[in-house]
Amino acid sequence: MCSDNKNHYLCIQMNKRYAIIVAGGSGLRFGGDVPKQFRLLCGRPVLMHTVDKFAAAGALVTLVLPEAHQTYWRELCNKYAFETPHQVATGGSSRFESVCNGLSSLRLQPGDLVAIHDGVRPLVSRRLIDCAYATASLHGSAIPAIAPTDSIRQVNPDGTSRQLLRSELRAVQTPQTFEASLLQGAYNVSYSPLFTDDASVVEAAGHAVTLIDGESSNIKITHPADLLVAENLMNDGR
Amino acid sequence: MCSDNKNHYLCIQMNKRYAIIVAGGSGLRFGGDVPKQFRLLCGRPVLMHTVDKFAAAGALVTLVLPEAHQTYWRELCNKYAFETPHQVATGGSSRFESVCNGLSSLRLQPGDLVAIHDGVRPLVSRRLIDCAYATASLHGSAIPAIAPTDSIRQVNPDGTSRQLLRSELRAVQTPQTFEASLLQGAYNVSYSPLFTDDASVVEAAGHAVTLIDGESSNIKITHPADLLVAENLMNDGR
Repeated sequence: MCSDNKNHYLCIQMNKRYAIIVAGGSGLRFGGDVPKQFRLLCGRPVLMHTVDKFAAAGALVTLVLPEAHQTYWRELCNKYAFETPHQVATGGSSRFESVCNGLSSLRLQPGDLVAIHDGVRPLVSRRLIDCAYATASLHGSAIPAIAPTDSIRQVNPDGTSRQLLRSELRAVQTPQTFEASLLQGAYNVSYSPLFTDDASVVEAAGHAVTLIDGESSNIKITHPADLLVAENLMNDGR
Repeated sequence: MCSDNKNHYLCIQMNKRYAIIVAGGSGLRFGGDVPKQFRLLCGRPVLMHTVDKFAAAGALVTLVLPEAHQTYWRELCNKYAFETPHQVATGGSSRFESVCNGLSSLRLQPGDLVAIHDGVRPLVSRRLIDCAYATASLHGSAIPAIAPTDSIRQVNPDGTSRQLLRSELRAVQTPQTFEASLLQGAYNVSYSPLFTDDASVVEAAGHAVTLIDGESSNIKITHPADLLVAENLMNDGR
């Protein structure tokens, strides 16, 4: 606990929360011209729900958008009177590059915490966000994951395959959350196609990552029908 | 090709198609009293769509239902004037036991083909069903599988984890389809908790299985919201 103003200030600084919300997908195949992160969910664009979740948890939000979408986003913010504070950074040609751009737009201090989150996961709960920041502050990283719903098999180069033990597997979600110096160090490399998420970048830099329990309701809106699922879950109060 | 009546008869016998549709879930937690396999999808119970898919592909259908659901199913068949031929077998306390019961209700001949399918996957396509039977007829088995949508990690007993290469992973679906003798031999064992699907039973008997391409639209209706997704996909003509 912090007992005086100076220490209080230091406490806040040490645990400053940032969120990089990645919304780079052009989504031109999403059954229409509007990329999925801009589609309406319970009356307003998906991304506004996502930004609000992190802002409500006290995070300074950077939204990473392709340059071509930024004017449209500003128009949407006007139209929906969206006033939640956030900055916009410009997306790259890969998720890795988009996160790099988001990171370099921030003035991070050692001890700050950075959550990297898919823009199209608007149903993340406050509980999960808080747990991710708290775990990253203790262990350096927090990667939410849940048991996969399907049986998973591993395919060998010769085409044969074997069943993996479902109890040993976890399907990875976001927000993937890290202590700032660790994350910046890890991202100070060239892109590799093996970087499918932030955990893989941090691991490639030699750090083990810490898994936390994700949420089955923290779905990624990938197909048009996922919007129906999301709306249904939101109406259930998730 | 078959050139005379006798050979024609043999051809049909060799490739006789059976389908065991497993609908054992009591589903008491499915947001209501009606188990999910009986919920309405585009105006009639999910299971009727599933049975029709296999019957249309020329399969003799065995529907495996818990004893407690069988009267209700007959009432539904009357109410919806469902006349697609099928027999009903009694489900067991595990999927393994339900499949065993389904198998022992059939008079299979070597060379017959048996597809085992989740009752709650009503969106399986005719293309996938035909491909599964054709592949099993050539190779002994056919297991539909698709690339998982999430990154998957493998957790070690000490709590550490490692990312698996997504390109090497497949999420398993049904219909899992087998040559009859191979399947009967494999199921002639005691239950193991490692038997999470039919492929794992057949592998435990020492047979490699053949993977085929599944379909992302071949979803398993697990949560109430999945019915919305299924309805949406059906209306898209999947």
